[in-house]
Amino acid sequence: MRNIKLKISYHGKYFYGWQKQPTVKTVQGELEKALKKILKIDIHTDGSGRTDAGVHAIEQVVNFKIDKEIPNSAFLHGLNSILPKGVRVQEVEDVDLDFHSRKSSIKKTYKYQIYNSWVSSPLYDDFYHWVKYPLDLEKMKEATKFILGKHDFISFAAAKNSTKTTIRSIYNAKWEQNDKILTFTITGDGFLMKMVRNIVGTIIEVGLNRYEPDMIPIILNKKNRKYAGKTAPASGLFLKKVYYEKYN
Amino acid sequence: MRNIKLKISYHGKYFYGWQKQPTVKTVQGELEKALKKILKIDIHTDGSGRTDAGVHAIEQVVNFKIDKEIPNSAFLHGLNSILPKGVRVQEVEDVDLDFHSRKSSIKKTYKYQIYNSWVSSPLYDDFYHWVKYPLDLEKMKEATKFILGKHDFISFAAAKNSTKTTIRSIYNAKWEQNDKILTFTITGDGFLMKMVRNIVGTIIEVGLNRYEPDMIPIILNKKNRKYAGKTAPASGLFLKKVYYEKYN
Repeated sequence: MRNIKLKISYHGKYFYGWQKQPTVKTVQGELEKALKKILKIDIHTDGSGRTDAGVHAIEQVVNFKIDKEIPNSAFLHGLNSILPKGVRVQEVEDVDLDFHSRKSSIKKTYKYQIYNSWVSSPLYDDFYHWVKYPLDLEKMKEATKFILGKHDFISFAAAKNSTKTTIRSIYNAKWEQNDKILTFTITGDGFLMKMVRNIVGTIIEVGLNRYEPDMIPIILNKKNRKYAGKTAPASGLFLKKVYYEKYN
Repeated sequence: MRNIKLKISYHGKYFYGWQKQPTVKTVQGELEKALKKILKIDIHTDGSGRTDAGVHAIEQVVNFKIDKEIPNSAFLHGLNSILPKGVRVQEVEDVDLDFHSRKSSIKKTYKYQIYNSWVSSPLYDDFYHWVKYPLDLEKMKEATKFILGKHDFISFAAAKNSTKTTIRSIYNAKWEQNDKILTFTITGDGFLMKMVRNIVGTIIEVGLNRYEPDMIPIILNKKNRKYAGKTAPASGLFLKKVYYEKYN
């Protein structure tokens, strides 16, 4: 038995998210179809986590178990010759049998990109959330400090959240500006559904001077989704990296 | 009478090039339709040059004459609210009546992006030419030196070239590498149809060790399109900047 780990990247626009669904095109669905073509049997893949429809992945991690002796380079090129536009396997590696892309992960990094300008970017609008009105980056940075550390993030979870615990630790969260582009990078031990987009949507409200930065701890304490800002659009969000004790 | 200069940017994938055509969607066609909606009369626009189907523009320059007193900011936002996805007006400016976006231009810069990796980039493949096999960048740089200066570029023009003269001056041409991405930037007094893509296609042949760098002067001297390499795909090409004596 072999346990195969893949690093894959995908363009969110081409898929209804990671998770397999019966009627729509998803990354997991396309990947399992491609694996079946190569291996002639049904393969179940595990991803490090779901990404929603429209969310991009620079590096999503997937694993699955097989019995066949196929060289990893053949796997890589075989899968990429079958996979549709918008998704590619970047690396293939044999890992310990107990490695699990989701359960073994110790932290994850997401990035969110905002294009802040009176005029949108026709070239790159698949990769940014366009915010027309000027954002106050200093206030956004101030607000961001309040989400660092261990908190109950239920106020920033999707309304239909169903995870056992909504407590998560944020190790790092920062904003960088390059001309009209604001990039938010956040690393934590895990993220609730829509959590990054809800945090960004709320911080944007701060940047637009609709909330003060110290509204963030108040929202956290309310433990209620309705106090946070709008969910920022999927197009700006990228799963950047999934970390493991071994096999990074 | 006013002479209005626009800086516009567009995503090549959404248009059949700059130039108006009766049956397909082009940048000029969409722009003139939007102007007609605002001004209620037919407006003829001049672009600094045609870009082919699929070629992007970071900054294309356009001008046209009108009689109306519309504030430029209203023009900017009005046009952008009408224009389709993939094209936006970035700046609007009143210029001297004798300014002409093509005739007044003194030089132009294009950029060409190659993604050099065994696996393509599913996120950014609209913006790169994917070259699978390793390229020898040093040889490409060596080849590039031969196109600097004033030459007859007919060997690198589209086969159906019909310009009066095929002599052009290249002021600057360089390659930069950032991990898997190779960026070619070229500035000259003007470019023949498909010239940048034919130069890049030929330099790629050098990078793949199919031609030696000193084939470039031989190809130039042949004055025949058939000696140059393949036309590199439109997706990697960006019109970056058009320069003028005044109004940059």
